[in-house]
Amino acid sequence: MDIFEDNTKVTDLNSLGEFKLIDEITRDFQCRDKSTYKGIGDDCAVLEYPDKEVLISTDLLVEGVHFDMVYTPLKHLGYKSAAVNFSDIYAMNGTPKQITVSLAIPSRFSVEAIKELYAGILQACKNHHVDLVGGDTTSSLSSLFISVTVIGEGEKGKIAYRSGAQVNDLICVSGNLGASYMGLLILEREKAAWKANPNMQPDLSGNEYVLGRCLRPEARFDIIEILKAKNVVPTAMIDVSDGLASELHHICKNSGVGCAIYEDKVPIDPATIIACNDFNISPMTAAMNGGEDYELLFTVSQKDYEAIKDIPQISIIGHITESKDVALLITKDNKEVEIKAQGWDSFRQ
Amino acid sequence: MDIFEDNTKVTDLNSLGEFKLIDEITRDFQCRDKSTYKGIGDDCAVLEYPDKEVLISTDLLVEGVHFDMVYTPLKHLGYKSAAVNFSDIYAMNGTPKQITVSLAIPSRFSVEAIKELYAGILQACKNHHVDLVGGDTTSSLSSLFISVTVIGEGEKGKIAYRSGAQVNDLICVSGNLGASYMGLLILEREKAAWKANPNMQPDLSGNEYVLGRCLRPEARFDIIEILKAKNVVPTAMIDVSDGLASELHHICKNSGVGCAIYEDKVPIDPATIIACNDFNISPMTAAMNGGEDYELLFTVSQKDYEAIKDIPQISIIGHITESKDVALLITKDNKEVEIKAQGWDSFRQ
Repeated sequence: MDIFEDNTKVTDLNSLGEFKLIDEITRDFQCRDKSTYKGIGDDCAVLEYPDKEVLISTDLLVEGVHFDMVYTPLKHLGYKSAAVNFSDIYAMNGTPKQITVSLAIPSRFSVEAIKELYAGILQACKNHHVDLVGGDTTSSLSSLFISVTVIGEGEKGKIAYRSGAQVNDLICVSGNLGASYMGLLILEREKAAWKANPNMQPDLSGNEYVLGRCLRPEARFDIIEILKAKNVVPTAMIDVSDGLASELHHICKNSGVGCAIYEDKVPIDPATIIACNDFNISPMTAAMNGGEDYELLFTVSQKDYEAIKDIPQISIIGHITESKDVALLITKDNKEVEIKAQGWDSFRQ
Repeated sequence: MDIFEDNTKVTDLNSLGEFKLIDEITRDFQCRDKSTYKGIGDDCAVLEYPDKEVLISTDLLVEGVHFDMVYTPLKHLGYKSAAVNFSDIYAMNGTPKQITVSLAIPSRFSVEAIKELYAGILQACKNHHVDLVGGDTTSSLSSLFISVTVIGEGEKGKIAYRSGAQVNDLICVSGNLGASYMGLLILEREKAAWKANPNMQPDLSGNEYVLGRCLRPEARFDIIEILKAKNVVPTAMIDVSDGLASELHHICKNSGVGCAIYEDKVPIDPATIIACNDFNISPMTAAMNGGEDYELLFTVSQKDYEAIKDIPQISIIGHITESKDVALLITKDNKEVEIKAQGWDSFRQ
């Protein structure tokens, strides 16, 4: 099976040294965007944003905390490291333009392994038209650390903050929720089985969709393009990294409002439901508290209902209410349940 | 002695969780610069750079690789993490404006310890008029990781790249070199003695200057201000992080030129020379290969000689030559020695 990676050591990192390693891994990256005036190769990158707002975000991925090398292919990990950062720019209704990537690498990784990681970053950059413009590469005594900063552009007056939701706005979400979490549970189950019996063959068949959502999530640039084409500017937006419950609370708290969402409107893929049944987990729990979906959760004015109601990639799941900070779930049998934020917290595992 | 830190655990990180920790540590940071439109609190920070070039740089500091918790006070570490990033912006003849700080924190650190680290970052931000606008905070299984990205502004046409040095330009360096490396050697010597006998009192008296240069380096904003006041735009510039030898080669390689510097012109503080004598190390070795000085190495046109010759913070140490990639040291007894780059490489320790 491919997924349990064999990081065969071929070329020692220390045989190459930092400067040659940087040469090796940056060779395939070319800067293409007009806002990139100067990329890698000096003390700083030089960018030009004369007519746009500059958006900045950063994410840190830590081995053993955010990913497990036992079942994480390095190319997917590279793709994910970049994509989760792009997602933060899309969540402002912006467009990512540049990233910097800093790595702290334990000596057990080979040059080839690090190149594989960068191949994933390169693929994500190509798919999203983003330039790699800098970074820092150093050794690490224990875990692999990946720190990515993304720079993007937003149009003045069209940036979607968490704070702009208005009473009666419609609450929308892209794609579907909970799949990534179920993928993670399957990988953890198979890892435990493999540790108990290293000769076993992990059983991942039939779960390709949820595994893909976990290992190689995509950032929803398509949603930003669709909204632009429809002339819809979200009143508030956030990406779903910690689970729907946590993100709803962020929007409510920042906007000084409440919300009500309908259980039967929350989009969950059939593959997620099958996995939930296997684990005896409620699909709503996976959607609400699973996290790492990198879908976009946003609010739009009622006047935009006609423009978005038939977009297959977007579900309208509820509306904004006056009840400050109160997030309600209306269940299928028409009961009101208060939603508590129970997103993932790396300090509390 | 203060320097061997006692990280008394008072409040567990996991008792607070990520969101409350972020609230605690960001409370004292206020955004002041007009280019910061929106700081911490959304998916991205929003910045405005309508009339300037945007400069971006990033540095990663890893416990056990870049710093040793045995003798590194956390406040100094915070200051240094920010200052070394500001230094990259100054090295482009620019002005730092914003930073993002990402931390991966092992559970042995208390909330109080992390607040101490941020107190140092805050002090550096205040001294350099920089806003903290974002970051990521997560747990780590082993080492403390600090990833800082800095955003700054440069004036069009006045950015100093590594590639602009011209034949016959004067080579200048700010302050003095080699002090930080000698500070590090003293700390390592005292750590070894302390490990052999934990009841010993480390002997650091008389070495305050070199220890300060190692533990809490400053970024040379004053040099940028002086050059601006004198209407001097460096033809090339770099900060001395890996040692003078390595930085000279970077400028020569990027500019397609060579250089000659004079041993008797390289500025070395008397305190550094005393420490070098203690360790039986040539002061030129400390200056050439020590690194972490965060002084500015730059070239100026001959026409600017009058403007800079009497500035006490700046030494003219040599000139640019035609011999591609050849860096020569003219010794005190007038011999020519080729300078090899032997800067620090974390993969080769």
